Amino acid sequence: MTAKLIHHQDLLVFSQQVMMKMGASEEDAFCVADNLVKSNLRGIDSHGVGRLKRYVEGIRTGYMLPKAKSVVEKESPVIANINAMNGLGQPVGVLGMKTAIEKAANTGVGIVTVFGSNHYGFAGYYAMMALEHDLIGISMTNSEPLVVPTFSKNAMIGTNPIAFASPTKSEKPWVMDLATSVVPSGKLEVHNRLGKDIPPGWATDEAGKSTDNPSQVLTNLYRGLGEGGIFPLGGEGELHGGHKGYGLATMVEILCGVISGSNFLRDVAFTKDGKAKHPRVGHFFMVLDPSFFIDIESYKIRMDDMINRMKNAEKAEGQSRIFVHGEKEFEEHDRRAANGIPIDERTVESLVGFSNEFSIDLKII
Amino acid sequence: MTAKLIHHQDLLVFSQQVMMKMGASEEDAFCVADNLVKSNLRGIDSHGVGRLKRYVEGIRTGYMLPKAKSVVEKESPVIANINAMNGLGQPVGVLGMKTAIEKAANTGVGIVTVFGSNHYGFAGYYAMMALEHDLIGISMTNSEPLVVPTFSKNAMIGTNPIAFASPTKSEKPWVMDLATSVVPSGKLEVHNRLGKDIPPGWATDEAGKSTDNPSQVLTNLYRGLGEGGIFPLGGEGELHGGHKGYGLATMVEILCGVISGSNFLRDVAFTKDGKAKHPRVGHFFMVLDPSFFIDIESYKIRMDDMINRMKNAEKAEGQSRIFVHGEKEFEEHDRRAANGIPIDERTVESLVGFSNEFSIDLKII
Repeated sequence: MTAKLIHHQDLLVFSQQVMMKMGASEEDAFCVADNLVKSNLRGIDSHGVGRLKRYVEGIRTGYMLPKAKSVVEKESPVIANINAMNGLGQPVGVLGMKTAIEKAANTGVGIVTVFGSNHYGFAGYYAMMALEHDLIGISMTNSEPLVVPTFSKNAMIGTNPIAFASPTKSEKPWVMDLATSVVPSGKLEVHNRLGKDIPPGWATDEAGKSTDNPSQVLTNLYRGLGEGGIFPLGGEGELHGGHKGYGLATMVEILCGVISGSNFLRDVAFTKDGKAKHPRVGHFFMVLDPSFFIDIESYKIRMDDMINRMKNAEKAEGQSRIFVHGEKEFEEHDRRAANGIPIDERTVESLVGFSNEFSIDLKII
Repeated sequence: MTAKLIHHQDLLVFSQQVMMKMGASEEDAFCVADNLVKSNLRGIDSHGVGRLKRYVEGIRTGYMLPKAKSVVEKESPVIANINAMNGLGQPVGVLGMKTAIEKAANTGVGIVTVFGSNHYGFAGYYAMMALEHDLIGISMTNSEPLVVPTFSKNAMIGTNPIAFASPTKSEKPWVMDLATSVVPSGKLEVHNRLGKDIPPGWATDEAGKSTDNPSQVLTNLYRGLGEGGIFPLGGEGELHGGHKGYGLATMVEILCGVISGSNFLRDVAFTKDGKAKHPRVGHFFMVLDPSFFIDIESYKIRMDDMINRMKNAEKAEGQSRIFVHGEKEFEEHDRRAANGIPIDERTVESLVGFSNEFSIDLKII
């Protein structure tokens, strides 16, 4: 498989134009495109422009409404709950985080939930929006049921990410963005494409037992019957703490789905009759102003101190570097911003398809 | 080893009296005793009355001040940061959570951090204080460095628990309380006492490699030089997501230690000269009122619905039951409240010691 290099600015303009052709406003289309391309820039290709195809399908199928106008349903000086009206996930996500940031200006805290939404891209995007304001940002979303509760064989819970971004002084911001499953489904897809076994403890077959066969797991997940799936962080059973990942994923389900009035668990996948895809997922955004707890300079110096102590800790045998969260992604961002983003063959094909269909120029380096 | 049964009310009164003999007020002593005994009742013996000995030692050594009066250092309508003045962890923990609950009454959210504190018992205790007010409670604390960052061989991070409690309608409340390490240190101690190997992926030797020898890990941890320790949730390296547990533990370190002005990482263990124990840990308490997002009846019904769907999911091969978080502990609570709490031989010895020293009657069933 040969990847093609595309410059991130060209990819941004291209993706934005595709979304505009599908009916999104210039601004909403930018939200989607910027999220996808930033994800590629950071090396998280699973949430990059490869998703454009799914968004186009979502709009054509009718469960993503590109012209939807979100509505604030409940509000207090600290909290808001926003109805996304089945619109695109990224614009309402940006609105949610902006609203949380505004609220935090007065009180030190802002919390916004969103319901009736769609896939919002990568969670860290929203958490990082807080950084330029010297704020801590938190972002979570529930998602398609791919993960089995401990001791179950049914995929019921999303890979439900938690993202947390903190400002720093001289160090790169500390940015954690993790799925609460052992691995994201993208890792199974990569192993499957390469014909490689997956390690025990990643995913389960339809009997609920750990399997090394990624094709079997993916086929089961695509059938959508909930037979088998990915294990929660901590793996199979309770021996290595699988019940903890199951707990964290459920917490995200509560904060994004249950409290907002959104769909949760298997309802995220399909309508009740099982016929149509109908995610109606929920998101959770939170902003915390460190200056309400301690002076902001101290906070940032202390963050640098913490980061440096971890980076400079003694390495385990055979290891040459200890990473702090976000570090790898910032480095990849700089590399890809300078050299272009490598886009895999299958994604290039889908982009060329849009280029032809919508008569939008696709510049490959 | 034969355990002795003690009735929880007798254990409560006894523990409270010990703390009063050590100089705590009746009220503060109750906070400590109630936390320890509730932990035993829920089956979490690692945080039960076995800890009394350590608290007595902490007071005698001088890093726990039983008469300390905590001071609110910073406050807004939503936030407070409290200086525990090196006092006992439980009373300031209860104050922290009560303050968060009061603040949430006005705004739907309350967030309180505590710094300069000591071991506060089990995290779920504080999260559950929110339940009787129909509120979501969240509680975290940083703690003694026992956990190695991914690719390091130094124990630098605490087992840093996250607790989350949500009200429900007819079901038992959903209560998650988890250390962000693969296992708590107590599990290593149990394996060590029984002369059993530990599974690969739990803990590391002084070279940073997974080991099956719990005695080696514990000896290293007790020496306090940071050589080896417990793996973060997800285990060794990145293959099963060890970097995710490392991220979550660091997030707790930020929210409890960095933002509050408390100690963090290895400073939690000892003074800078390494001579005296000097934890000065920090706690994070948060309360969220679901009625600010959705009406409270709907919320509770939706929680019941989520819980029931998970309980009734299909079981993995060889499994007969899917647990939801808190369920095991509520059942154990009912059993132990009725039958008495089994206290292990070593803990009974320490209690008998206090009984003799302080002339307090210890009633064993």
